[in-house]
Amino acid sequence: MDLAVVGSIVVGALALIFAFYKSAWISRLNPGNDRMKEISGYIQEGAMAFLSREYKALVVFIIVLFVVVALLINIFTAICFLFGAIFSILAGYFGMKAATKANVRTANAAMESGMTKALNVAFSGGAVMGMCVVGLGILGISVAYIVFGEPNIITGFGLGASSIALFARVGGGIYTKAADVGADLVGKVEAGIPEDDPRNPAVIADNVGDNVGDVAGMGADLFESYVGAIVSGITLGIIAFGKAGASYALAISAVGVLASIIGVYFVRGDKDPQKALNGGTVASSVITLIVSFFLCKVILGTYQPFIAILVGIAVGLIIAKVTEIFTSSDYKYVKGIAQESETGASTNIIGGLSVGMMSTGIPIVVIAIGILVAYYASGGTADTVKGLYGIALAAVGMLSTAGMTIAVDAYGPIADNAGGIAEMCNLPKDVRNITDKLDSVGNTTAAVGKGFAIGSAALTALSLFVAYTQAVGLDGIDLTNPTTIAGLFIGGMLPFLFSAMTMSAVGKAAFSMIEEVRRQFKNMPGIMEGTEKPDYKRCVDISTTAALKEMILPGLLAVAVPVAIGVLLGTEALGGLLAGSLVTGVLMAIFMSNAGGAWDNAKKYIEEGNHGGKGSEAHKAAVTGDTVGDPFKDTSGPSLNILIKLMTIVAVVFAQLFVTYNGILF
Amino acid sequence: MDLAVVGSIVVGALALIFAFYKSAWISRLNPGNDRMKEISGYIQEGAMAFLSREYKALVVFIIVLFVVVALLINIFTAICFLFGAIFSILAGYFGMKAATKANVRTANAAMESGMTKALNVAFSGGAVMGMCVVGLGILGISVAYIVFGEPNIITGFGLGASSIALFARVGGGIYTKAADVGADLVGKVEAGIPEDDPRNPAVIADNVGDNVGDVAGMGADLFESYVGAIVSGITLGIIAFGKAGASYALAISAVGVLASIIGVYFVRGDKDPQKALNGGTVASSVITLIVSFFLCKVILGTYQPFIAILVGIAVGLIIAKVTEIFTSSDYKYVKGIAQESETGASTNIIGGLSVGMMSTGIPIVVIAIGILVAYYASGGTADTVKGLYGIALAAVGMLSTAGMTIAVDAYGPIADNAGGIAEMCNLPKDVRNITDKLDSVGNTTAAVGKGFAIGSAALTALSLFVAYTQAVGLDGIDLTNPTTIAGLFIGGMLPFLFSAMTMSAVGKAAFSMIEEVRRQFKNMPGIMEGTEKPDYKRCVDISTTAALKEMILPGLLAVAVPVAIGVLLGTEALGGLLAGSLVTGVLMAIFMSNAGGAWDNAKKYIEEGNHGGKGSEAHKAAVTGDTVGDPFKDTSGPSLNILIKLMTIVAVVFAQLFVTYNGILF
Repeated sequence: MDLAVVGSIVVGALALIFAFYKSAWISRLNPGNDRMKEISGYIQEGAMAFLSREYKALVVFIIVLFVVVALLINIFTAICFLFGAIFSILAGYFGMKAATKANVRTANAAMESGMTKALNVAFSGGAVMGMCVVGLGILGISVAYIVFGEPNIITGFGLGASSIALFARVGGGIYTKAADVGADLVGKVEAGIPEDDPRNPAVIADNVGDNVGDVAGMGADLFESYVGAIVSGITLGIIAFGKAGASYALAISAVGVLASIIGVYFVRGDKDPQKALNGGTVASSVITLIVSFFLCKVILGTYQPFIAILVGIAVGLIIAKVTEIFTSSDYKYVKGIAQESETGASTNIIGGLSVGMMSTGIPIVVIAIGILVAYYASGGTADTVKGLYGIALAAVGMLSTAGMTIAVDAYGPIADNAGGIAEMCNLPKDVRNITDKLDSVGNTTAAVGKGFAIGSAALTALSLFVAYTQAVGLDGIDLTNPTTIAGLFIGGMLPFLFSAMTMSAVGKAAFSMIEEVRRQFKNMPGIMEGTEKPDYKRCVDISTTAALKEMILPGLLAVAVPVAIGVLLGTEALGGLLAGSLVTGVLMAIFMSNAGGAWDNAKKYIEEGNHGGKGSEAHKAAVTGDTVGDPFKDTSGPSLNILIKLMTIVAVVFAQLFVTYNGILF
Repeated sequence: MDLAVVGSIVVGALALIFAFYKSAWISRLNPGNDRMKEISGYIQEGAMAFLSREYKALVVFIIVLFVVVALLINIFTAICFLFGAIFSILAGYFGMKAATKANVRTANAAMESGMTKALNVAFSGGAVMGMCVVGLGILGISVAYIVFGEPNIITGFGLGASSIALFARVGGGIYTKAADVGADLVGKVEAGIPEDDPRNPAVIADNVGDNVGDVAGMGADLFESYVGAIVSGITLGIIAFGKAGASYALAISAVGVLASIIGVYFVRGDKDPQKALNGGTVASSVITLIVSFFLCKVILGTYQPFIAILVGIAVGLIIAKVTEIFTSSDYKYVKGIAQESETGASTNIIGGLSVGMMSTGIPIVVIAIGILVAYYASGGTADTVKGLYGIALAAVGMLSTAGMTIAVDAYGPIADNAGGIAEMCNLPKDVRNITDKLDSVGNTTAAVGKGFAIGSAALTALSLFVAYTQAVGLDGIDLTNPTTIAGLFIGGMLPFLFSAMTMSAVGKAAFSMIEEVRRQFKNMPGIMEGTEKPDYKRCVDISTTAALKEMILPGLLAVAVPVAIGVLLGTEALGGLLAGSLVTGVLMAIFMSNAGGAWDNAKKYIEEGNHGGKGSEAHKAAVTGDTVGDPFKDTSGPSLNILIKLMTIVAVVFAQLFVTYNGILF
């Protein structure tokens, strides 16, 4: 048995033990006074209720797909699929449980001990999510690799992870934005009460949304990328270097997990939360890089593939920086949108759309260069598969420290929730100041995390695409073949259709929420006077039901279309479809996420007192832009990351089927 | 000498004579009273001033590109390029001259004789544009074919047509929307004066914009598609069937021109303008189809390729119908946006964006099916090049009746202008009623024309793409090659970057226009009282200068990027680039055009009295959407049609260069 594989299993178990230990530590902390316990209890209850209803709804889907895979492919792949799905669910469950415990304890820590302790609690909550994701991911894959040996079977694990991720991202995204838009438009705009005011009936749903969307949804997204990258690394590694290739992909991942655990200890003591978080990220990246460098020579006998890992990390960092430039009010783009808000909502919207489209330029060029360098530096000139393995390694490298990235990312919504709880429980002003500071750092890390998620999705989907061509035995996919072109067109269109569906789902759900909040304010006049409690549950229920209902169709589409195209038009057409959806999916994801981020920060920039400040005409225009940006950046945009990976992994898993029925139409 | 070629030259000359005759007939009509002559004089002057300044600015570009082509490729291609550019300029010049003469005479005919005569004048103005485009197009190509014989050289003519088209579309699009937004936001919204009020300083610029954007810009766009389709038909025809293949492509085009001339005579007498226009379109299509059917057997000895022509026409009609469904207030999508306007501008925007994205679905699937049927029905299974020739024939077939399509399309802005003149000259109310009726029909034809322009651009670019692979001698373009993927990503990104540039150009130009109109209202108080004449020239000048300045960079990008990628990364990467930009270009063009059209008609639907009618909150929200939609549907969206064709034709013309320097980087 291979040392790297055994090591991976041990490291995976270690990560889970670490997560358990952190989680227990959080539980032991003081959750504050009765009011705080009550409010956080509502949030936890709502979040868990959503997860359990979501998982129940997915049981049917999982069973059906299990049977389909078992019958059409084989039972082993179906078993891997089942475990991938269960592990994804577990990661989401544990992570969110920790997050909903950490939020109130962060607020209490801010009150009792100040910034340092509050940062520590919030970040520990995120770290539980991060370690659950990487621990379950690497454990699942390495056990599947030991048991089945065959890469094609292990991709079943990826399919499980991906399909759950899609539903979690889409459902969570619809949930959080319906609640957010509903709470804002009626509470803030119509009733004139502040954000997170306990009199707002949608306020609990809004805080639950932060957890199910930004914690559970994001975690499932990166779980999927993580698993997908390692699976394609194993697949292509075996072809390029034999078992050593697979071992190296696993070894980097295992090193990255250990480095992330060490990195967690770098996040502390400091007074500036941004620097503290950066310290942890840098520490884990540097450790991973140094160890990967030596392991490369030891395991593969050459230093060449190491460059691909370097490329992956560099691409991730550059995209994150570009994301910041286009979405932070420190730079000219967001300032320009704020300026354009002075001539009204339409110029604000045109400005935001234009900035979003513009922001695709550099990331795409960087991804393109990254692909070329990863390929040629890994020896692609002499040996094609070595080059392709390089592309997979770039994805593995980029995601190796995912434990840390997710921890930093999930910290944001926990701090945000802590602020909400402080507001709802009337905690002292300086508590809110601390949580606001933590939250604003969280906004930057969220933007960076989104850039990272997109970059990793692009590289992962691309390596899975390569794994697909190997699985169906294609020597190449010819773009001059009309079926390839037809596939390319249809694939390119899917992200547009998918975004249209998720955006209109948010619109519909937000509409029901607005009606309900208006109804409560009207029928229960005691709410505004503070004598009557709003019916939080009803709002939580509206978001939950809408999210579950609207996630079904896009989810089925993502699984059904690749299978249909592969069978009807053949493997080359399916290759075209995957390439088309990869390109427009990445573009639309960058466009939508960054436009949304830019609108959000343009509004905040005006609220800081620029262009007339809060209540000015410019501010009203900026609020319009921000509301349009909400489903852009938190629902449709991020869901596309998963769409492109899920469709590719469906193609890999069903490869055998397409070889048998290779285009029955032409 | 080939009968089809000679026939094409004769038919081309005939079309030009017909255009001249129609133009002379329009000139002889009564242009109305002195006020009408004065106002229409301003419009004509402004339009011609824009064209002449635009053409002057392009002289440098044309000379530089001429020298580059002559040195890098050969002098014959450079000469063809020169004539393509000159012919495109001439078509735009003659067409717009006729349009600016027909507008005032349409208004006068409505006053003196009523609807029938007014329709006849407006449509005749459009017919001059249509016949100039197809006449100069087919004449230029067939003469070049006789003189040089070599398809590669004739593509130079396409390059000339395409590069002028890009500048005309982008420049015209920026011009018209800057004037429109400026006139609306200050005149209608701030000063509260009606549309086309002569007191509005930007009113002349707005009317000039209809001509330079919707007449000259659209004409140049379809001139380019027309030329591109025939050139690729000749190129692939020669490979598939020898000279007969080229003859058939020319023969269909010549028949289409004749059928369009006949079709013009079907547009008359009737009282319902929509039916009259439909009658002409149907007549010319049916004639073309019947004759092409018999010619297919006569020239090619088989009926198979005829199916491709049928496919091309069917694809065009289906896309046009889908465009109507997504953009007309008779259907649920526009009604939904109007409903969503009740909850404010943000839900209106989300609704419009979502409808635009949704509307890409069916057209893309139809294009994909069209490609497959055209390919396989033309014998692609047995002989690849016959299948590829089929794809080119689909484009040729779709564009064969372009003379008629353009006439119907250009009729819209002429009727719109006639209405503006009626308003500005205080003509009787029933004159305005007639022009309003003609204008509303024009809105439908414009939407249909846009769908047609996108469909033809997709098929033309695809056939040029195929011609490119032949020209550089590629057996295939492998999508698993990392340089192809890098090209695909970069190509896919360009339409996003390009749209961002054109949208922000409109934003900037509109901003200057708003400032100027505000300044005039403030410094010249006599304007509002009617005692002082506004400074129209200043506004015309602002639009002109902004359009000319902002069209340069996007234009250069479209020429420079394909050349750079071809030389640096090689022919396969360039193939990837072209495919990527083709897919996202078509998608973004459909998305932006239809979202813009849907917003426009949602606003009009509310203005008809729904959801509170004019002045309601819903109306204000809908105006925001409409303003965002303006650059979407009239600048960025349509410019993408040209971008994708121009980049492909650049690749074909410089094919030789890429064969010599095939990827100097890798």
